Parts: sequence; structure tokens; C-alpha cells
Amino acid sequence: MSSSLWFMIALMGIATVLFVYMGRGVEDPRVRTIFVATIGIPAVSLASYFGLASGLTIGVVDIAGRGEVVAMWGRYLTWTFSTPLILLALGLLVGSDRPTLFAAIAFDIGMCVTGLAAALTRQAVWMRWVWFGISSAFFLVVVYVLLVEWPRDAAVQGDDVESLFGLLRTLTVVLWFGYPIVWALGTEGLAVVGTGVGATAITSWAYSLLDVGAKFVFAVLLLRFLADEPASVTRRQPTGAQSPTED
Amino acid sequence: MSSSLWFMIALMGIATVLFVYMGRGVEDPRVRTIFVATIGIPAVSLASYFGLASGLTIGVVDIAGRGEVVAMWGRYLTWTFSTPLILLALGLLVGSDRPTLFAAIAFDIGMCVTGLAAALTRQAVWMRWVWFGISSAFFLVVVYVLLVEWPRDAAVQGDDVESLFGLLRTLTVVLWFGYPIVWALGTEGLAVVGTGVGATAITSWAYSLLDVGAKFVFAVLLLRFLADEPASVTRRQPTGAQSPTED
Amino acid sequence: MSSSLWFMIALMGIATVLFVYMGRGVEDPRVRTIFVATIGIPAVSLASYFGLASGLTIGVVDIAGRGEVVAMWGRYLTWTFSTPLILLALGLLVGSDRPTLFAAIAFDIGMCVTGLAAALTRQAVWMRWVWFGISSAFFLVVVYVLLVEWPRDAAVQGDDVESLFGLLRTLTVVLWFGYPIVWALGTEGLAVVGTGVGATAITSWAYSLLDVGAKFVFAVLLLRFLADEPASVTRRQPTGAQSPTED
Repeated sequence: MSSSLWFMIALMGIATVLFVYMGRGVEDPRVRTIFVATIGIPAVSLASYFGLASGLTIGVVDIAGRGEVVAMWGRYLTWTFSTPLILLALGLLVGSDRPTLFAAIAFDIGMCVTGLAAALTRQAVWMRWVWFGISSAFFLVVVYVLLVEWPRDAAVQGDDVESLFGLLRTLTVVLWFGYPIVWALGTEGLAVVGTGVGATAITSWAYSLLDVGAKFVFAVLLLRFLADEPASVTRRQPTGAQSPTED
Repeated sequence: MSSSLWFMIALMGIATVLFVYMGRGVEDPRVRTIFVATIGIPAVSLASYFGLASGLTIGVVDIAGRGEVVAMWGRYLTWTFSTPLILLALGLLVGSDRPTLFAAIAFDIGMCVTGLAAALTRQAVWMRWVWFGISSAFFLVVVYVLLVEWPRDAAVQGDDVESLFGLLRTLTVVLWFGYPIVWALGTEGLAVVGTGVGATAITSWAYSLLDVGAKFVFAVLLLRFLADEPASVTRRQPTGAQSPTED
Repeated sequence: MSSSLWFMIALMGIATVLFVYMGRGVEDPRVRTIFVATIGIPAVSLASYFGLASGLTIGVVDIAGRGEVVAMWGRYLTWTFSTPLILLALGLLVGSDRPTLFAAIAFDIGMCVTGLAAALTRQAVWMRWVWFGISSAFFLVVVYVLLVEWPRDAAVQGDDVESLFGLLRTLTVVLWFGYPIVWALGTEGLAVVGTGVGATAITSWAYSLLDVGAKFVFAVLLLRFLADEPASVTRRQPTGAQSPTED
């Protein structure tokens, strides 16, 4: 289990330094905002994994009718900070209007907080699944924004933005569905591999690998594109004075 | 006590679904933002009450010189998320300027967090009342915005907005004063009805009924009005380019 | 130790009332926003110190290989709320662009949250220092904004704004470096004065005195300047329609 944490600490530490280096010369305000949000993703992950590795945000939960399970509740807590940054970066990329970006982030935070509640609930197994259901309902709103709302916005941007968004959207939606699946099958849910040390390690590695894709690969793809400050992102949108860059 | 929680879970679950249904065709960005904020109110309440019902955000506090009291501290925690949404919806409705909206929400969060501190303080009864006093001071700033600042903004909107705001403002101010009164008289304050199981149930029902009015009735009144996207809300304000709608 | 807390409660209580009084007639929206943010600084500090004095946000941490240390973890928690207000006030004063203000506040919050993690970590002393290192890295980004980015913005404002910003920036950078130094030398770090009652009192007083400068003196200097609504702050910036005042 521990190796799944230290591996991520090293990866996210390198990523943070690399991304700061990539963004050192960026001047355009919109690109800079996306850069800052995206650099925050590995920085938050680094802190998240160190919180788990240092034992601070990890605990044993004694669930009625199930027994003791290792709860890495720090994951859910820090997703509350890191996943909004992912959505912020995507929303700024496609030039999302404010209400949609606000909705995506608000429901995303709701998803993470209720996921945290699921992880900490001990009174009954079915109550954990109710939290899982509430959290999943919030998640579907985020998926709706990613699959229906933002593709429309992306379509009126440059072709390069639209094709990058298509890639990042697919990566995000597919991998984000992986998290509830790992929860449902892993030690905190149905525990199909048991709840012992080995099962905890498998569950933890599954989350870590999802994070490699959904956070590290995501950020590399986005920042490699943005580092050159492509004209399709830096230029004002046709609607003029009220581009989302400016406030 | 438990019935006061499950009743609210059912009500807020129905409300969330109903409000999403009511808002399905809304196109105007300002109306959509208010809709999203308002839908968040029952969604957060649902999670809040399930947190209490599942025992996750409830505890027994052993107060020096008083004895053991059931503290439903999850209420104060989730008000930190839900009451700013109420103020956001009202502020957007009347076209509040940013500083005033920011102040209302900041002091509202201060009110909730210090209320949470009051609920958890065990060292002395008087210290709980100091928290109560600090929280009440924050509350008065919110009341000032509701009674003095926003009526002015509402007056320059359409007559329908002004009259709706008048109704919502009265509902909000009157019911919000009910919460500190319930706290002061209930099991966590003077405990005029004692601190036993019956008293806890009465206190809990009092809060739940206040929530029915301040959250459910509030949201129904607001969204019923907005569902038709009235011209007085959707049209740009006369001051032009910098209407609060747009960012 | 206790005296270092009650002294601050009295000071911050007086400051809050005084600042509200100073700001009673302010009309300009930009000046009002800075006023509200700045009034929030002593208000949050008041709650922070009362949280420590009431024993709510203070605890004894048993650190492996070190022994028991009094952890005033509430300080780090409330800095998460108060220090962004300081940066918000400074950023609005110099007319910072959004990405830079967002970055400063985001890294500042990261600094405080990882500082909180350092205070609560018990597993090993070196792990506490890793948190200290991560927190310090976040801090350096904030220092960069204060020393490199915002002076440029201040230079295009009026002379009075530029000279006030120069003073506040120096005050802030110098005193903010004091906090990690106190941490490193005090009871939670190297414990050069030991970890007993006396050492805890010295450490606590050191933080309190830093707070007097970084929060109280800072706010007095800023608000005394702003109370007259100087033209260099209230007037729109030359770039016109998109001044940071307006959203």
C-alpha cells in the first residue's frame, strides 16, 4: 500500500516542478490562469499523498456488520480541492459561461464531500451506499456538463482547442467513472478482493493509477498545448468585451 | 428526534428533483445561475440531514457544569454551505453589487463557523455564549444587508422583482431570527425544556420546521417566479456593460 | 500562554469595532470591498484566539521520538481564512489582474493547510519537516507575487498608492517570514527553548506579536489611508471598462 503512495509523491513532485518550468514565460492572462489552476493539480496531489503516507489522513473505520476497514479518507478530502481545478482549467479552455462553470464546480465539490461522508460512515453498510448514491447523482451533473454543455462551447473555439478538449473530455469522463467503480468493488464497498492488507494495497494502487491518468497525463496534455500560447486561446472571443478571461 | 431528520430527507430529496425539473428549460444565464444556487439549497440540506441521520455529524458533548448534551453539529457545518447559496440567490435577484454580496456571504460564513464553535465548546457554558454573541454580531451584518442595502437595489428593478424580494426578505429575516432563538432556548443553550431525549427531539423539530420555511418555501417561491424567465430579471440592467449577471 | 491569547482577543475586538466605525461612510465600491476584506482580518483573528482560549482548537500531540507538545492547531486553521483577506486587500489596492490574485490566494491557502498538517503530524519528526518544506515552497510563490508582480501593478497607480503598497509589502514580507522562523525554533520545531509550559508561552507570545504587526498594524495603515476614499483608488483605471473594481 505504502509504495502506491510514495510513487505518487515522487511523480507529483516532479510534475509540479516541471509544470512551473513550462509556465515560466507565459504572458497571456487567460493562459496563465489555466496554468496556475493546472499546476495546482499536482501540488494538491503531492500534499494529499504525503498526508496519506504520514498517516495523518488515514484511519481505521469499524463499520457495523462489516468490521474494520482502512479508510484513506484524505483522498476524498483533497479531491475537494484538486478536482475543481481540473474543471476550472477545462472550463476556461472552452470559454465556458459562468453559471455552467459554477454549477460544474459546485456539484463536483458536493460529490467529493459526500464521498468523504461515505468513507467515514460506520453506522450501517447501506448508509454508506446511500452516500455513494448521492455522490453519484452529483457526479452525473458534472458528466452532463462535460459531455453536453462544454462541447458546444468548444465547437465555437479554434479547431485545435476543440480537438484538445475532445481528448481531455474523454480522458476525464472515462477515468472519473473509474473512481466510483474502484470504490464499489474495493475495500470500502463490496470488497470483492477482501478487506485485508493485500486488498487495501490493490485498492490504493487502483486509485493511484487513476490519478496518474486523470491528473498527471491530463495536465501534461493540457500544458504542452498551452505552453506556446496558441492564438486560439489567447485571442479575445468574438463576443467581445466580456470574455471569461477577464474576471 | 430521528423522525425530524427523515422527514426532511424526504422533503429535500423531492425538492431537489422538482427544482431540477422546473429549471430544465431555462436559458438566460442570470436566471440559470440563480436556479443552480437555489437547487443547491435542498441538495445540501439533503446531505446535511442524512449526515445527522447516519450519525456521522452528531455527537454527545460533555459540557463542564452542564453535563452531556446531544450536539447536532452537522447542522452548523452544512449551513456554512447552504446559507451562502440563499444569499447568493437573493443578491443576484436584486442585482447586488459585488462588495455587498461578498460582505453578506463572508459574514454569513463567519456566523455559521462560530455557531459550529459554540456547539462544540465544552470548557464552560459562558464560553458557549461568547461564541453565540460573536455569531450574532456576524448575523446582524447579514440582516443589515437584507434590510437596508438590498431593498435599495431591488427598488431599481422591475416591480415584480421588488415585490418578490420584499416577500423573500421578510421570510428570511423572520425565520433566520428563529435559529438563534431555538439555540438559546433549546438543549444547547438555556435548555428550558431540559436536555433529555424529549427535549432533543423538540429542539431538532424546531430547527427542521425553520428549515422547511427558510429553505424549501423560500426556494419554491423564488423558482416558481423565475421558471418563466421574467423580462425584469433577464434583461440587462440600464447601467449596461457591467451588469452583475455577467461574471 | 493564556495571557497571549486574551490580550489578542481584546485587541482584535477593539480593532473590529474601530474599523467598522472608520468604514461607516465609505461609498466607493472598490474602497468598500477592501474595507470589508480588511475588517474581516481582526474579526477572523478574534474568533481564532477565542477558539484557542476556549480550548476548542488546541490539543496535545504525542509526536513519535519527541513526546507531547501543545499544538495550537487552530492558528493554522484560521490563517487559512485571514491571510487570503490580507492578500485580497493588497491585490485590490494595486489593481492586480485576476490570475495573479487567484494564484497568490491559492498558494497562500496551500501554505496554511500544509502548515496545519505539519502541526498535526505525529508519526515522525522528519515528516513534520517535510510538511514545513512543502508549506515554505507555497510561501515562496506568495513572496514572489508580493515582491515582483504587484510592485509593477502598484507603479502604474498613483504615487500615494505606490508608497503605501511599498510599506505594506515590506511589513508583510518581513513579518510573514517570522512565522516559519518561530515554528522552526519554537515548541513545534527544533524546540530551542524546550517544550514545557514556559516554552509554549514564549512561542505563543511570539506568534501573537507577529499577528499584532501583520494583522492589526497592517489593517490600521491600510484603512487610515482608505477612509478618505483617495482619488487614486476610487478612480477607474485608464484601461477602462475592465477595471478589477467591478467584479
